[in-house]
Amino acid sequence: MIVKLLLDRKRAGEELSPKEIRKLVRAYTRGEVPDYQMAAFAMAVCCRGMSPAETLALTESMRDSGTCLDWTGIVSVPTADKHSTGGVGDKLSLVVQPLAAACGLAVPSLTGRGLGLTGGTADKMESIPGYVAGLSLADYRKVVADCGCSLTVQTAEIAPADRKLYALRDVTGTVPSIPLIVASILSKKLAEGAGTLVFDVKCGAGAFMKTRSEAAGLARALVAGAQGAGRQACALVTSMDEPLGFAVGNANEVQEALDVLRGASRAHDVADLSVELAARMVALGLGLPVEAARARCRERLADGSALRRFARMVALHGGRLDAFEAAVADFRRNGPAREVRAGRAGWVARIDANGVAEAAFALGAGRAKASDAIDPMAGVDLAVTRGDRVEAGAVIARVAAADAARLEAAAERVRAAVELADERPAPRPAVFEEVR
Amino acid sequence: MIVKLLLDRKRAGEELSPKEIRKLVRAYTRGEVPDYQMAAFAMAVCCRGMSPAETLALTESMRDSGTCLDWTGIVSVPTADKHSTGGVGDKLSLVVQPLAAACGLAVPSLTGRGLGLTGGTADKMESIPGYVAGLSLADYRKVVADCGCSLTVQTAEIAPADRKLYALRDVTGTVPSIPLIVASILSKKLAEGAGTLVFDVKCGAGAFMKTRSEAAGLARALVAGAQGAGRQACALVTSMDEPLGFAVGNANEVQEALDVLRGASRAHDVADLSVELAARMVALGLGLPVEAARARCRERLADGSALRRFARMVALHGGRLDAFEAAVADFRRNGPAREVRAGRAGWVARIDANGVAEAAFALGAGRAKASDAIDPMAGVDLAVTRGDRVEAGAVIARVAAADAARLEAAAERVRAAVELADERPAPRPAVFEEVR
Repeated sequence: MIVKLLLDRKRAGEELSPKEIRKLVRAYTRGEVPDYQMAAFAMAVCCRGMSPAETLALTESMRDSGTCLDWTGIVSVPTADKHSTGGVGDKLSLVVQPLAAACGLAVPSLTGRGLGLTGGTADKMESIPGYVAGLSLADYRKVVADCGCSLTVQTAEIAPADRKLYALRDVTGTVPSIPLIVASILSKKLAEGAGTLVFDVKCGAGAFMKTRSEAAGLARALVAGAQGAGRQACALVTSMDEPLGFAVGNANEVQEALDVLRGASRAHDVADLSVELAARMVALGLGLPVEAARARCRERLADGSALRRFARMVALHGGRLDAFEAAVADFRRNGPAREVRAGRAGWVARIDANGVAEAAFALGAGRAKASDAIDPMAGVDLAVTRGDRVEAGAVIARVAAADAARLEAAAERVRAAVELADERPAPRPAVFEEVR
Repeated sequence: MIVKLLLDRKRAGEELSPKEIRKLVRAYTRGEVPDYQMAAFAMAVCCRGMSPAETLALTESMRDSGTCLDWTGIVSVPTADKHSTGGVGDKLSLVVQPLAAACGLAVPSLTGRGLGLTGGTADKMESIPGYVAGLSLADYRKVVADCGCSLTVQTAEIAPADRKLYALRDVTGTVPSIPLIVASILSKKLAEGAGTLVFDVKCGAGAFMKTRSEAAGLARALVAGAQGAGRQACALVTSMDEPLGFAVGNANEVQEALDVLRGASRAHDVADLSVELAARMVALGLGLPVEAARARCRERLADGSALRRFARMVALHGGRLDAFEAAVADFRRNGPAREVRAGRAGWVARIDANGVAEAAFALGAGRAKASDAIDPMAGVDLAVTRGDRVEAGAVIARVAAADAARLEAAAERVRAAVELADERPAPRPAVFEEVR
C-alpha cells in the first residue's frame, strides 16, 4: 500500500476499496502511517465524502482496532443500546438504560466524559458519592450480567483507532463529516457488542446538527452503517432547540432523572422521549410491535421497576443514592445560588439551549480540557419551560455553584437565554422523524 | 491564530485573509505549526481552491520565507527570466537564457535538479566536465553581472517554506492544485528578483498538465500572480505531446542545445520555441513590440552572440566545452548503444513523449530519489520527428548508456513510443495560445 497514491485517489473523488481502507486504518493505528498523511485523508473525506461501502469499512476497521465484546454466555436476554449525539440537559441514558433493562433487555452502555460546555454521562454519574464510572471490562460485564445495565466510562481497550483519529480530527478542522462521525460513533457502539442500536440524533440550536435535514442525513447513515454491520437499528431525529427537562449540570441532572424514574418530575419531555427510545430498543430487541413495546415501557416506568434497576446499578458501581440525595437537598438549601427573574410578563417563546449550556459552563459544570475538574453541584435549574406563562418578576431559573463569584454572569446569561413574547408559541413535536 | 479554526473555515469553503495565510506560512516555516495541520490545509486547498488574493498571499509569504535577491547596482540592464513547467527533451533554458542575455537583458535563473524520469537543467549542465551548478549566491551574482546569465541550482536560502511544503505535498496526495503549484513556482521565481517573467506552460502526454484547458488555467494563474506581485509577465501554452527536439537525456540534450545555438541543428522546434520565449522576455523587458523583439532574437541567434554568451557562462561556471564535445563524440563512436529500427514503412504519426522519457529513465538518465546518481551519457537520440516518412528497417532512434545491460528494454520502449501510420499526420501548432 502506497499511502500517497490512496490520498491522490481520494482527493480526486475516487472510491477506495474496503481492503485499502482497512489497511490504512490498521497501519495508522500501529503508527506506520504518520499523522500528516492521516490528516490529509480526513480532510479529503470531509471534502469528497465516502460511499456507504467505504464508511462501513472505516467503521469496522476502527471497531477491530481494539477489544470487541461478546455477551454470549454472560447475559441470557437480547442486548440493546441507545446512543445520543448529545444535547443540553440530556440525561436520557440514566432513564432509558434501566428502563430497557427492566423491560427484559441487557444494556451494555459504555459512555463518555464531557469535553465542552457540560459534563458527559460518566461525569454526571460521578456526582453520586462513591460511584465509580471507570470499571474494568471484567467488572463492567459483571454489573450488566447482574442488573441488566451499567453506565461505565469507555475504556482504552475499545476502538483505540477512533481515539487516535478523533484527537487528530479535533486539531485539523476535520470534525464535521458524516462518514467520519458515523465511523467514530459506530465503531465504539459496535465494539460494545449490543445486537440492537437505537440512535437519538438531535438537531437544533443546542445540538451539533443545526438543521433537520443534516440530522436526518446522519440518522440514515448511522442506521445504514449499523445494519450493514449486522445489527438491528433505528433512529429518532429529535428536537434540541430547548434544553431537555429543567436541570442542566451534573448532580441536578441526576436528581431530575431519579425524579423521572419515580414518576415525580415535571420534566414530561424527559419521560416521554425516554419511553420512545426505550420502546424502540424493546421493539427491535424483543421483536414486539412498537405499540406493545411502548406500553410495556410505560408500565415498567410507572411500577418502579426501572427505578429499582437504576438503584441496583448505582449500588453495584459503589454509589450511595441516599447520601447523594441528601447532599443535593443540602446544597439546594445552603449552597451559593441566585434566582433569575423575568424582566416582563409574557409567554416563554424560546429557551436558547446553547445559552443555558454556556451558563452551566460558566458555573463550573463542564471542562475545557481533559484535566479540568468539574463542580458537580454547579448548574442551572430552569423554573419554566417553552409555552409557560410568567408574570414580571417571577422566578424563571436558579443558578448554583460552589464558587459564588461565578453566579452573577451565569444568571445574566440565563436571563438572556429565556425569550418572553406576547404570543403563546405554537406547540412543537419532540420527535421529528423515525429512520429505520 | 488558532490553526484548527482556519482549517475549519478553509474546509467549509470560506476565504482566508492574506494576513491569516501569512501567519500560517510563517508559523509553519518556523516549525510552530505541525505537518499534520499543514497537510490538512494543503488537502483543503486542493478540494476548495483559493481566491487570487489567497494565492498571492501564499506566494508572497513563501517568497519571504528566505532570501530575496535584488539586482540593483549589480546589473545595469533590465532583468527577466523564463520558467517552464517541464517536459521531455526540454533543453530550452540552455538556448533561451543566453539568447535573452545577448539581446540586452540580465537573466538570473535559478534552476532545479530532476527528480523523476529525466534530469533537471542543473543535471544537464553538470554533464559538462568541470561545470559547477551549485554556486553560492555571491558567485552567482558575479556570473550574471559578467555574462548576463547563469544556470545555477537553487540554493537553500531561496524560499525554504516552499521546499518544506513541497516535500509534504509530495507524500500527502496534494500536488495537483493550481493555487499550490502557482505559489510553489512563483515564490521561487519572485525571490530571484527578475522584473519580467515568461512562463512556458506545457500540455500534453509528456507534461504535468494533460489538457489545454488545464494548462491555460495554470498559465492565467501564473501570469496573474506574477503581475499581482508587481512583475511584468506573460505565458505561452505549448505542446508537449512529442519530445522537444531529438535528444532526451543529459549530455545529448546539452549537445543539441549547442548545435541549435550554432544554427547547426535539425531541431527547428527547439530553435523556434526558444525564439518565441526569448522574444517575450525581450519585448516585456525592453519595451519593444513582439515583432521587433522576435527579429532581434533571430539575429542574435544567427550571428553567434547567443552561443558566445553560453560559452562564456559555461566557462565562468568552470565548465570545459571542448572537453565536453570531445567526450560526447567519443561516447557516440565507442559507447554502448543500440539502434531502433522501424518495423514497417509509414508516416511518424506520434512519438509518445512519456514513453521516450521512460526509456531515458531506464537507461539511467533520471533519478528516483535525491541520492541516486545520473548517467550523463545515457539517453535517447531520435532520428525522426512527427510527420517524417520512414521505410521498413530504417533507423528511427538510438539509445545509449554506460551500462549496456540497460539498452535492450529501453530500445523496446522507444520502438513502442514511435507510432507509424499510413496517413501523413496533420501539422500541429507548437504554441497553442499566449496569456498576458
